[in-house]
Amino acid sequence: MSVHMTWTREALAARIDHTLLRPEATPADIDRLCEEARRYGCAAVCVNPIYVARAVARLAGTSIKVATVVGFPLGASLTATKVAEAALALGQGAQEIDVVLPIGLLKAGEIDRVRADLQAVTATCHAAGALCKVILETALLTPEEKTLAARLAVEAGADFVKTSTGFGPGGATVEDVALLRRVVGSSIGVKAAGGIRTAEQAIAMIEAGANRLGTSATVAILEALPSASPAPEGGISVS
Amino acid sequence: MSVHMTWTREALAARIDHTLLRPEATPADIDRLCEEARRYGCAAVCVNPIYVARAVARLAGTSIKVATVVGFPLGASLTATKVAEAALALGQGAQEIDVVLPIGLLKAGEIDRVRADLQAVTATCHAAGALCKVILETALLTPEEKTLAARLAVEAGADFVKTSTGFGPGGATVEDVALLRRVVGSSIGVKAAGGIRTAEQAIAMIEAGANRLGTSATVAILEALPSASPAPEGGISVS
Repeated sequence: MSVHMTWTREALAARIDHTLLRPEATPADIDRLCEEARRYGCAAVCVNPIYVARAVARLAGTSIKVATVVGFPLGASLTATKVAEAALALGQGAQEIDVVLPIGLLKAGEIDRVRADLQAVTATCHAAGALCKVILETALLTPEEKTLAARLAVEAGADFVKTSTGFGPGGATVEDVALLRRVVGSSIGVKAAGGIRTAEQAIAMIEAGANRLGTSATVAILEALPSASPAPEGGISVS
Repeated sequence: MSVHMTWTREALAARIDHTLLRPEATPADIDRLCEEARRYGCAAVCVNPIYVARAVARLAGTSIKVATVVGFPLGASLTATKVAEAALALGQGAQEIDVVLPIGLLKAGEIDRVRADLQAVTATCHAAGALCKVILETALLTPEEKTLAARLAVEAGADFVKTSTGFGPGGATVEDVALLRRVVGSSIGVKAAGGIRTAEQAIAMIEAGANRLGTSATVAILEALPSASPAPEGGISVS
């Protein structure tokens, strides 16, 4: 499959936030996530706030970032709560924050409130030297709302727009990724997340303009790609 | 239908938290929710934190409480975030807090951490004269975990155990409500929530031991029941 020829396992891994946000995830599940991220060389792990300190400890000494979520997945917490949640996570060593915008306020046209919400969280992240990704939950938005939301994220100083929480009625689509990339240009990143289960999907998202992917299917996706490293003598490269 | 004979619209309404937690809900949707709660005489409205102040203003002068959610719906926020979120909502006039327990920690057997999490939020609520309901997300738990979670909620001083967030893989069941009532006895309340769409379901939950229901189908449920009030002359009682 030609699409596989152009991406090695290592190159794709470096774009993936290896993600586990299920509410029933245990500390042992988080340890496994961190081990997998380390094995493949992912960009980051993305875990719930309760597991940030654990993931930071597990990934100490590596270049893998710890990302967490704020106001997640509904985006309907007060701005002060989002800021407090972000600050606590940053204090525990999180280096990236994925925050959900207040979707109902966006739909109601309360643009100044949405922008202020995103600005407050973004500023909290940047003060700690961390990145801020704004989750739009595109499956709930009209094309006009997606465009507006991406513009507000840029205005707020966000480092990425991200398509989806993975808990909404739909995940990332190639069309939405392309739309977001058109809106934000090269000014900030685009993270595709939600429902990405195969290498084909992952690569399609990147070709549409995503420069980061969030997925929990990291191992299956990467195992479908050739490794750049030579296999060990007479052996299989990754078991 | 005999089940309808034993419950009037008014009696059932007084047990219902009229609920709207969808992330795309707008301020206008919340206003409609409050108006419906007022018309039928519900126990409370249950809204996301961002709408607490609005609901409090809309329901001023009525006996209808404003409930909100904390650490919702994943339960995987830090305890300090949950406490901050609860305190902010209480400061804006919320009188009931529905908090999700840390499900992954429960499954991992980190009982002391779960109890401490619930105690901290419950104490914050009680200091403000508010009720605290602990959401177990029963669809993710084994029978043993449901029992343990309900015991921990009682130990933490909670006022209710609540079955479900409405965002999990399943909602309230008659079996779970009965189990929770057996575990907590008459010491605290049991709130059934998630997937309750009809008067039959609602009444079955109460007969199984629930004394509070959370639903967004309040109007349909109550319109299926006879009103205790006489209809206006020659007319239909509620349009």
